[in-house]
Amino acid sequence: MRISLIGSGRVATHLAQALAQQHEIVNIYSPTLINAQQLAESVDAIAIDQLSALVPDLDLIIIAVKDQAILACVEQLDSALAQVLVVHTSGSTDLSVIATHHPRAGVFYPLQSFSFEREIDWSQTPILIETAQSKDQTLLLELAKSLSERVYPYNSQQRLSLHLAAVFASNFSNYCYDIAAQIVQQQHVDFDLLKPLIVETALKATQQAPDNAQTGPARRGDVQIIAQHQALLAQQQQHAFADIYQIMSQGIIERHKLS
Amino acid sequence: MRISLIGSGRVATHLAQALAQQHEIVNIYSPTLINAQQLAESVDAIAIDQLSALVPDLDLIIIAVKDQAILACVEQLDSALAQVLVVHTSGSTDLSVIATHHPRAGVFYPLQSFSFEREIDWSQTPILIETAQSKDQTLLLELAKSLSERVYPYNSQQRLSLHLAAVFASNFSNYCYDIAAQIVQQQHVDFDLLKPLIVETALKATQQAPDNAQTGPARRGDVQIIAQHQALLAQQQQHAFADIYQIMSQGIIERHKLS
Repeated sequence: MRISLIGSGRVATHLAQALAQQHEIVNIYSPTLINAQQLAESVDAIAIDQLSALVPDLDLIIIAVKDQAILACVEQLDSALAQVLVVHTSGSTDLSVIATHHPRAGVFYPLQSFSFEREIDWSQTPILIETAQSKDQTLLLELAKSLSERVYPYNSQQRLSLHLAAVFASNFSNYCYDIAAQIVQQQHVDFDLLKPLIVETALKATQQAPDNAQTGPARRGDVQIIAQHQALLAQQQQHAFADIYQIMSQGIIERHKLS
Repeated sequence: MRISLIGSGRVATHLAQALAQQHEIVNIYSPTLINAQQLAESVDAIAIDQLSALVPDLDLIIIAVKDQAILACVEQLDSALAQVLVVHTSGSTDLSVIATHHPRAGVFYPLQSFSFEREIDWSQTPILIETAQSKDQTLLLELAKSLSERVYPYNSQQRLSLHLAAVFASNFSNYCYDIAAQIVQQQHVDFDLLKPLIVETALKATQQAPDNAQTGPARRGDVQIIAQHQALLAQQQQHAFADIYQIMSQGIIERHKLS
């Protein structure tokens, strides 16, 4: 397939590099030309900083930009691109954001946490697809399967619930790690000590339901330890962390009160 | 060394089985004899359900019971055991809980999440030790090093801060997974889809500081997506999850507002 990418951030970078193994990347667009150039060079594509410069002879345009910027990109597409399938990569943006302006619309959402520092195992990364026109589903399915063994057609509502769940499972768990790092730092204790625990907890969740794997003072109803932890947080003036400790512990206690 | 264990739960089980590779396990105590017997059989020890039945010819007694039960165990130890080093395995219990009743007191705290279903990589599990008498530190250090390459003498305050941090890094991150599982279940979406993301997020935290690794709508300041997620939670009547979403997002926004 001949594919152009709008965007040069984390998702665009990982996608372009993975797709370039099997497909032709034509253009990489970024409003900042140097960013587009950097990515374009690595995938043998042509960098552009104007959407009007997109080569129209394409099978697919992938919009991998911030959610709020998707609509503006769609609105700027040239009429010469009217016959090209255009997809976004967002978990929480409705298909209609593209479809109301461009009939051949779709979503190509890779459910993974992308960073510049780490490679992605694409074959195990779930890709959720959705298309406005059923004939386009075949094309998008084929593309997704060229990257991943785990491709799922889901509607916008299901995708939104998955993205919301991913915020808890990834963004909020990472924030828990960050709080832990701040707590030990205050006592001059090395955060490295917590790393085996972090990895073990995540691996455990892949083997058993997280409610069965739940441990800790709140799960045991150990009010004495909870009080000690709250006292330490108060002593360290970490009132925001104390509030989070409280609400999370309460949630765990409620969740398990009948078991 | 000749070691007896008080307790037959997750920590006692993993410890007994790891120690039995290189040391002699003499007694396993549980108030429920069948529990003690089950573990004792696997490590070639003698099960007891009375603390007075502990064989006194020992180098070490490990108390691996619920935090609130430690004191009662120490108080019941026979005077024939006065010369034996007695340690507990708790992250948040002060050394003094043993030391005020038994001068040869210590702490042997393995910082890991134990479950019956999964094996532990002991060589990489941090073990935190503390002793009331400096001569006992050598003994406990030697024992800890027979299991792990990562042994640290820390005082009770540092250990408390590590345990508190571990509650965030492990118990609360697991609760985030549990919430995610409940959210997708309501839309008949498979929780398995989130597993690569969970593991990747944890592995990332071992390679870069969690604050640098933070992603998601709160990190990007994407108020539109945050509002959509809140609306979905309200629609699903998940008000407790909405409160957690709010407080965690606020924390992430505050954390990164200057970056």
